[in-house]
Amino acid sequence: MRPSKRQPGEMRPVSFERGVSKHAEGSCLVKFGDTHVLCTASLEERVPPWMRNSGKGWVTAEYGMLPRATGDRMRREASAGKQGGRTLEIQRLIGRSLRAVVDMQALGEVQITVDCDVIQADGGTRTASITGGFVALHDCLKWMEARQMVSVDKVLKDHVAAISCGIHGGACVLDLDYVEDSAAEADANFVMTGKGGIVEIQGTAEGDPFSEEQFTELLALAKKGIARLVDLQKMAVG
Amino acid sequence: MRPSKRQPGEMRPVSFERGVSKHAEGSCLVKFGDTHVLCTASLEERVPPWMRNSGKGWVTAEYGMLPRATGDRMRREASAGKQGGRTLEIQRLIGRSLRAVVDMQALGEVQITVDCDVIQADGGTRTASITGGFVALHDCLKWMEARQMVSVDKVLKDHVAAISCGIHGGACVLDLDYVEDSAAEADANFVMTGKGGIVEIQGTAEGDPFSEEQFTELLALAKKGIARLVDLQKMAVG
Amino acid sequence: MRPSKRQPGEMRPVSFERGVSKHAEGSCLVKFGDTHVLCTASLEERVPPWMRNSGKGWVTAEYGMLPRATGDRMRREASAGKQGGRTLEIQRLIGRSLRAVVDMQALGEVQITVDCDVIQADGGTRTASITGGFVALHDCLKWMEARQMVSVDKVLKDHVAAISCGIHGGACVLDLDYVEDSAAEADANFVMTGKGGIVEIQGTAEGDPFSEEQFTELLALAKKGIARLVDLQKMAVG
Amino acid sequence: MRPSKRQPGEMRPVSFERGVSKHAEGSCLVKFGDTHVLCTASLEERVPPWMRNSGKGWVTAEYGMLPRATGDRMRREASAGKQGGRTLEIQRLIGRSLRAVVDMQALGEVQITVDCDVIQADGGTRTASITGGFVALHDCLKWMEARQMVSVDKVLKDHVAAISCGIHGGACVLDLDYVEDSAAEADANFVMTGKGGIVEIQGTAEGDPFSEEQFTELLALAKKGIARLVDLQKMAVG
Amino acid sequence: MRPSKRQPGEMRPVSFERGVSKHAEGSCLVKFGDTHVLCTASLEERVPPWMRNSGKGWVTAEYGMLPRATGDRMRREASAGKQGGRTLEIQRLIGRSLRAVVDMQALGEVQITVDCDVIQADGGTRTASITGGFVALHDCLKWMEARQMVSVDKVLKDHVAAISCGIHGGACVLDLDYVEDSAAEADANFVMTGKGGIVEIQGTAEGDPFSEEQFTELLALAKKGIARLVDLQKMAVG
Amino acid sequence: MRPSKRQPGEMRPVSFERGVSKHAEGSCLVKFGDTHVLCTASLEERVPPWMRNSGKGWVTAEYGMLPRATGDRMRREASAGKQGGRTLEIQRLIGRSLRAVVDMQALGEVQITVDCDVIQADGGTRTASITGGFVALHDCLKWMEARQMVSVDKVLKDHVAAISCGIHGGACVLDLDYVEDSAAEADANFVMTGKGGIVEIQGTAEGDPFSEEQFTELLALAKKGIARLVDLQKMAVG
Repeated sequence: MRPSKRQPGEMRPVSFERGVSKHAEGSCLVKFGDTHVLCTASLEERVPPWMRNSGKGWVTAEYGMLPRATGDRMRREASAGKQGGRTLEIQRLIGRSLRAVVDMQALGEVQITVDCDVIQADGGTRTASITGGFVALHDCLKWMEARQMVSVDKVLKDHVAAISCGIHGGACVLDLDYVEDSAAEADANFVMTGKGGIVEIQGTAEGDPFSEEQFTELLALAKKGIARLVDLQKMAVG
Repeated sequence: MRPSKRQPGEMRPVSFERGVSKHAEGSCLVKFGDTHVLCTASLEERVPPWMRNSGKGWVTAEYGMLPRATGDRMRREASAGKQGGRTLEIQRLIGRSLRAVVDMQALGEVQITVDCDVIQADGGTRTASITGGFVALHDCLKWMEARQMVSVDKVLKDHVAAISCGIHGGACVLDLDYVEDSAAEADANFVMTGKGGIVEIQGTAEGDPFSEEQFTELLALAKKGIARLVDLQKMAVG
Repeated sequence: MRPSKRQPGEMRPVSFERGVSKHAEGSCLVKFGDTHVLCTASLEERVPPWMRNSGKGWVTAEYGMLPRATGDRMRREASAGKQGGRTLEIQRLIGRSLRAVVDMQALGEVQITVDCDVIQADGGTRTASITGGFVALHDCLKWMEARQMVSVDKVLKDHVAAISCGIHGGACVLDLDYVEDSAAEADANFVMTGKGGIVEIQGTAEGDPFSEEQFTELLALAKKGIARLVDLQKMAVG
Repeated sequence: MRPSKRQPGEMRPVSFERGVSKHAEGSCLVKFGDTHVLCTASLEERVPPWMRNSGKGWVTAEYGMLPRATGDRMRREASAGKQGGRTLEIQRLIGRSLRAVVDMQALGEVQITVDCDVIQADGGTRTASITGGFVALHDCLKWMEARQMVSVDKVLKDHVAAISCGIHGGACVLDLDYVEDSAAEADANFVMTGKGGIVEIQGTAEGDPFSEEQFTELLALAKKGIARLVDLQKMAVG
Repeated sequence: MRPSKRQPGEMRPVSFERGVSKHAEGSCLVKFGDTHVLCTASLEERVPPWMRNSGKGWVTAEYGMLPRATGDRMRREASAGKQGGRTLEIQRLIGRSLRAVVDMQALGEVQITVDCDVIQADGGTRTASITGGFVALHDCLKWMEARQMVSVDKVLKDHVAAISCGIHGGACVLDLDYVEDSAAEADANFVMTGKGGIVEIQGTAEGDPFSEEQFTELLALAKKGIARLVDLQKMAVG
Repeated sequence: MRPSKRQPGEMRPVSFERGVSKHAEGSCLVKFGDTHVLCTASLEERVPPWMRNSGKGWVTAEYGMLPRATGDRMRREASAGKQGGRTLEIQRLIGRSLRAVVDMQALGEVQITVDCDVIQADGGTRTASITGGFVALHDCLKWMEARQMVSVDKVLKDHVAAISCGIHGGACVLDLDYVEDSAAEADANFVMTGKGGIVEIQGTAEGDPFSEEQFTELLALAKKGIARLVDLQKMAVG
């Protein structure tokens, strides 16, 4: 039995609240249960130096956590003077995941920065960030389309969403919350497209190594979960 | 006429949403119109080195802005590697303001950190932070009171709230939003207690210097505004 | 009775020693009693990026303290790897204060940096910096005038000077030294022009809040003090 | 055909040179073709703060690249003032991988730091680091065993090694060198134990997403490769 | 002929002004012509970690330059976020030089920090810092002697002073000013004791290498100069 | 008797292994006994800002130590967030030494960066870096000559090499290893050209000051040692 009483393949309630920012071209407050991430997509005319005059655009992401998003207050990274390894790792993952479904030629020479700031954390912040970040990115492109800057259908090649799975108490389960995550024998994050293509897989044994069979079971759970997340994204932006 | 059509002495709608954080001992989402600040109060057993074994506690504050809280995206301070001068100035102000109404002896040797993170900015983020931070601090003390750690009435000597005033188009006005603030000839921030004592005054001429008469008028506006804010705080926590 | 035996409205002896730097275009060693600040004004052809091609100039300030300017040796900020919040706050204040009396159009597209380095501290270093920084700035403009670059009378719209006041032992007093400052119930810094216009007001209650009446008394002291400082500036540069 | 003329499942020549450091308790120069990594294992009596008095030890890793290990000279991280996100990500991976086969209770309250410094890079530096880092760790434990500090067989639960796979020119291939890696459609790093348990999987689509079938093929290649690496480790340390 | 019209073996006028700091236990404003350095010696009870409980003391030095000590304004190191290589090199040299004449056992377990801040630079700031730093250190020890903490004669084993020499226009000259230093073919700094022992030699060819004969001539000049400086120190502190 | 049983004027075995890097234009693994330094010379088209459009080139150096190059593991400078004073001092010395024998006009407007990374340290790492760095620089120029970019004979005006000497147990000895260096009464580093010109001298008394006679003896030892090193360089690159 999971601590949350959920079934092994049951996700937490997921919701997308669009247009939550007065300023950002696209924005979305995504909730996976008690994990709440505010995603904003900001359009900038300036691309990174290595892209200049290429005619192509760029999508990048940054990730942060409010100091008391967690059970114990964490030190503010701005005050510590640098972003930690975990933060850098996660924002690189979000950026790669979103770029996987963007046609940079169709975007044109602009940059979109997707900021994912965790307001409240309860496990799965990186997967919520990718899933909600896609919605913010979509709405930024809609904003651009309304100004004849791009065609959303040409820029976005597919949906992209992410979910965590893990082995907890010997069983493979979907969408770990913090309590499960802390006690999991293994956890894995999957990023997949709407058509079921794999964009990123990250699996880690926390204690003993896991087997190929277990990994296959985690992947099967993830496929089901991501299909559900893509449906929810479509309802949200449809 | 003010850009927002408000009367000179009219504040924006102000609201306090308490208990917005699952983890923090006290929390409050404060809104002054389109300025939204998430305030959390975190109880920690560890006081600063210079307070140890003094039997007294400490209240401190930190301030941050999400990168796209503003019209143009700002660089994330964690990525820039340091907090800017404006950030440090504001968080020092918030801390001093809150400490002005706390009896550190009655608090006992613990530290409360009030984090004020601007989710959306439209002028007056520091005054909203102080006003909402007080509510988060109050609720943190309530949490402690429920555990027989303190008596709220002994720790809190008074209410504290803050408001900005300014000279805009030659007229003295209350609670400037971003559009007014950008065009103001002078702006001033006032921090006052429920009993009307002055905790902090910061007034700055943006263009030509202002006169003592103008300053007196700003102070009168502020007193009225802060009295109203304290009433709202009392309704919120009452 | 004040610890220094001064009358409530009595300032410490103030002096300006001009031309103390072989290299700087303008320089001034200002003394407010035992508080000694070396101010240099440096002319640079390069303006900040946002001013380029505007035809306007810029005046900025930096502030520092020698490690043993104070009673206990403080850590050198260059060694600590960053300027502290207090330093940033003060240098922003000095810059704003000096800019308040400069016509940037008449200055033309150059930058003047006023460095205020505290050689010895005994309270009131920021107000001494502003008051002495004005003299260094004036002399830098004189240097430019001698080279037909500007007309001092067109660039400088007025004098500017600053003084601290405070409530000590229940009484309002002018120009606090370190001993008074450490024990003051409130302290306030005022920046005003030669014509009596207010440029900046910063008042802080250290213990209990203060009243509007007390604040009015502090302002009256400050006006008298600043009028005296402007007279001294005029004698120094006349 | 692979650029290197290797068969799809063919690794580059792999070698381990032990005892290359006069000072380190364990050391190994590992070569995967032209990728050369110097691994040292350093025994320290001091464990991280959160482990103190737990009776348990800790194994951690750091990773670096000499500036001209690569085709173009890269900026030295010590001079840039921080370790990049890629570096932090890799050293966290190495540390987790090595800890997966260590019994911390049997190690006792000491820390072993495994430094992996890339002398020359040609793709696969992180997998070479893990594979060679294991040998350095093993030899450090041997050094401790010779001093009656531990029993190697009790501390090391298994071997651990790592290899990269990828999709290049539409085909799944093992152990990518730099030329392949730069042009790969997907690449994946696998960390596995001698008994075939999975410790870590990281797969990333560089262009289009990949399918579950492709991923399964990559995993099969990796299993074969890691079995071979573990044999080579055994020959090296046997 | 030297640009300054001085004879090859002629130093600039040298003066020591003692007791220039209200706060420091020892202080000295040293002038070598237009090079002015403010030296303060601060007594601290806390020694570096590696000296604790050794019964021995420590003497260390820090060095800084005011931004406009030089012909062109230099960036403030506190603002740049780090001390440059030249600064670190110089302060290490000052510390080593002063420690060469101190008996750490006789000093007892305290630390004296000598801060050398260049108020105005015209060549030879490091040699002036050592020569003036000695006077500040001496006066700090006198302060301690007056409080029965040490015996100056037991702590100070000798005098120490420093001077620069160089090859300019083919000739060996003593005590280079900035104009000479910029055009010198070689420059060398010598640190010597009152008894003529060599503490430190640093010689650098700026253009072509120099010969042993030239170096011997520089050393002879330095010996004469340092003997003169030690006489001046004795007159100053005698 | 020296701890190493060497004669006072006897160097450790010295060797140069050229071409050790697949990527660098020039490279050399230099060994002075157990001190091993990997030197690479990297050609870059970009010169420092102050050299642009001068038609002249630049040679610079960087220095680093692997964390476990030493007896006790040292903190990685990239992780500490800055290069220490010793590192900066050494890399400045290496750069100056190599530039002393380069004709920047003949080099043309390119930059060569010589990286010296200490793989294993046993005293004398800076002198080994200079001596081996020359070989890497030479080979980089050979690489350029083969591409008709320069003439090696016109760019290199001479050889340059370096050696340490010191006073150990009262005797002057050549080429100190770590054990001797730690116990030396004085140590001195000499950088000289093939023709015997002096490029740099750095001598430091560790305990009591040394005499001019002792220094002359150290210089004589150094001249002999450097002549031998230059012979070895010629054999290596001849």
